Amino acid sequence: ALAAAREDEEEKELRQRFMAPPVSGLRELRRRRRELRSRMELLIMETQAEMCRALAALDPGASFVVDSWERKEGGGGISCVLQDGEVFEKAGVNVSVVSGLLSEEAARQMRSRGKSLKAKDGKLPFCAMGVSSVIHPKNPHVPTMHFNYRYFEIEEADGTIQWWFGGGTDLTPTYLNEEDAVHFHKTLKEACDKHDLKLYPKYKKWCDDYFYIKHRGERRGIGGIFFDDLDSPSKEEVFQFVKSCAKAVVPCYIPIVKKHCHDSFTPEEKLWQQLRRGRYVEFNLLYDRGTKFGLLTPGSRIESILMSLPLTARWEYMHNPPESSKEAEILEVLRNPKDWVH
Amino acid sequence: ALAAAREDEEEKELRQRFMAPPVSGLRELRRRRRELRSRMELLIMETQAEMCRALAALDPGASFVVDSWERKEGGGGISCVLQDGEVFEKAGVNVSVVSGLLSEEAARQMRSRGKSLKAKDGKLPFCAMGVSSVIHPKNPHVPTMHFNYRYFEIEEADGTIQWWFGGGTDLTPTYLNEEDAVHFHKTLKEACDKHDLKLYPKYKKWCDDYFYIKHRGERRGIGGIFFDDLDSPSKEEVFQFVKSCAKAVVPCYIPIVKKHCHDSFTPEEKLWQQLRRGRYVEFNLLYDRGTKFGLLTPGSRIESILMSLPLTARWEYMHNPPESSKEAEILEVLRNPKDWVH
Repeated sequence: ALAAAREDEEEKELRQRFMAPPVSGLRELRRRRRELRSRMELLIMETQAEMCRALAALDPGASFVVDSWERKEGGGGISCVLQDGEVFEKAGVNVSVVSGLLSEEAARQMRSRGKSLKAKDGKLPFCAMGVSSVIHPKNPHVPTMHFNYRYFEIEEADGTIQWWFGGGTDLTPTYLNEEDAVHFHKTLKEACDKHDLKLYPKYKKWCDDYFYIKHRGERRGIGGIFFDDLDSPSKEEVFQFVKSCAKAVVPCYIPIVKKHCHDSFTPEEKLWQQLRRGRYVEFNLLYDRGTKFGLLTPGSRIESILMSLPLTARWEYMHNPPESSKEAEILEVLRNPKDWVH
Repeated sequence: ALAAAREDEEEKELRQRFMAPPVSGLRELRRRRRELRSRMELLIMETQAEMCRALAALDPGASFVVDSWERKEGGGGISCVLQDGEVFEKAGVNVSVVSGLLSEEAARQMRSRGKSLKAKDGKLPFCAMGVSSVIHPKNPHVPTMHFNYRYFEIEEADGTIQWWFGGGTDLTPTYLNEEDAVHFHKTLKEACDKHDLKLYPKYKKWCDDYFYIKHRGERRGIGGIFFDDLDSPSKEEVFQFVKSCAKAVVPCYIPIVKKHCHDSFTPEEKLWQQLRRGRYVEFNLLYDRGTKFGLLTPGSRIESILMSLPLTARWEYMHNPPESSKEAEILEVLRNPKDWVH
């Protein structure tokens, strides 16, 4: 009876910590608490809740819609979306934990390096989980932010489990504020430096290379960190690194929102923000591997994938900001990425 | 002296007929007036001017920006864009006439059926020309319209010229108006029927199949006609068919604009229009072969390609119109295309 009471207590506590009951179920997660899958699922659930709580505190009038969904083929997710608030135009924080069978082709596409995988009868059991978020604020002086941390396992014919992590956090300002850019990158660098001094420079560059809108010759934003296919030195060490990154999400971004969410702005500044939102859409629909992969996956949840799109966007023919304007200043940085911390 | 005077007169007349001097030059076009390339270039220039004049007459306060541009690798174009008018939110009518050398891979991608082409030293001389247009009106009761008519020539190693035509005209209403749908399709059907009664049903279906937003299970609009790789029965006959289609562009659309451009509308109707604009962006950036091919072509003019995007668009998380609403009515037709004329 005592054990049962303690279990109820624990369950209540976990429920309060999260936005919704975890996909794998609390009992199951507790039972398999030593397995990395379970620890990662708890981490992404915690990250979602931390971010949602921080956003809600800044936009008290708005409320999160919390949608738990199931995937016919296995697994499911929890989407938290705030729309048309006072501070945030659209903010989404998603968790998904899906599993099932992949074709060899689909499995290859999931890894950016395209390692070959030996399947039994052409099918590979897999498990994919992650937290992903895009925050589009109303005020053009508050930047858009995106993060995503994910873990994959694929089982080969001989029972070998291939696993890897991916993720990143990046910032997309409408106007450049150097102090904010330094704070953002410095917070991410500190999270990386705890593990290896080589990580931040490497993943900072990867981020600049990945979020590139080729046809414009511009990056989507001022970067951050990005990595994929991470499977060394060890599962435990990579998990600890990913955990540090996930724990840096709130401190790298929320202070910037607090600082600027009451800044005054002009209709012209709002217009420039809308044009930059258009570029954000161009990147996500034309280049983002995650979006493309998601839309092509059978049984994927379209609304959760396209939650990353802004509430509103704008395209003007031949819009070119005047030289030495604030608009030209950010464009210069998007065309030639800078090092914000050394 | 008389001949020179007559030539000046002709030149003046041609200049008045077009929005800008043709890419190939008037003298050159006159000199090679019997060649299909020249006749097609005159047709696309005329179609551009007819459409621009019809749009300008409906939106007298607005003016077209006319940009003539050159392509470093050969050829150029004329972009006519009206933005933020009284009647039109964004209307673009582009002509491009480009030539140069294609890689075998790029040449294969230009044909939807991917015929193989024998190149000399891996490079294929080509010529591509077309007129394309997207009209996004302000009033949600006036549909968006798109058309594109194009001609390609590729020269193989042995001197053989492969040629083909492509094109189409399609309508994207925010709300369904059956009378308009019937007028639009009937006008296109009449243009097709003059040439062969089999054409309209075939190209109507091709249009429904092409403008499909797979991840939504919806078409972009209520269709029209679409065809590609058209190279039979003969160059002359296909040209005459394309000419009939191009001449139908103004009569199939402009009466619909006239009829509805002063209709009253509610903020809710404007919102639904903006959400449909979002779907238009999804199709163009994720699926449209022309947009993808254009953005990947070296030396292509990004601003002319992305002119097809609306001035403004919107994405709401989980927007589902109520059953039996006007919004649900159009969705039903986008999910299950109808035959509008028999």
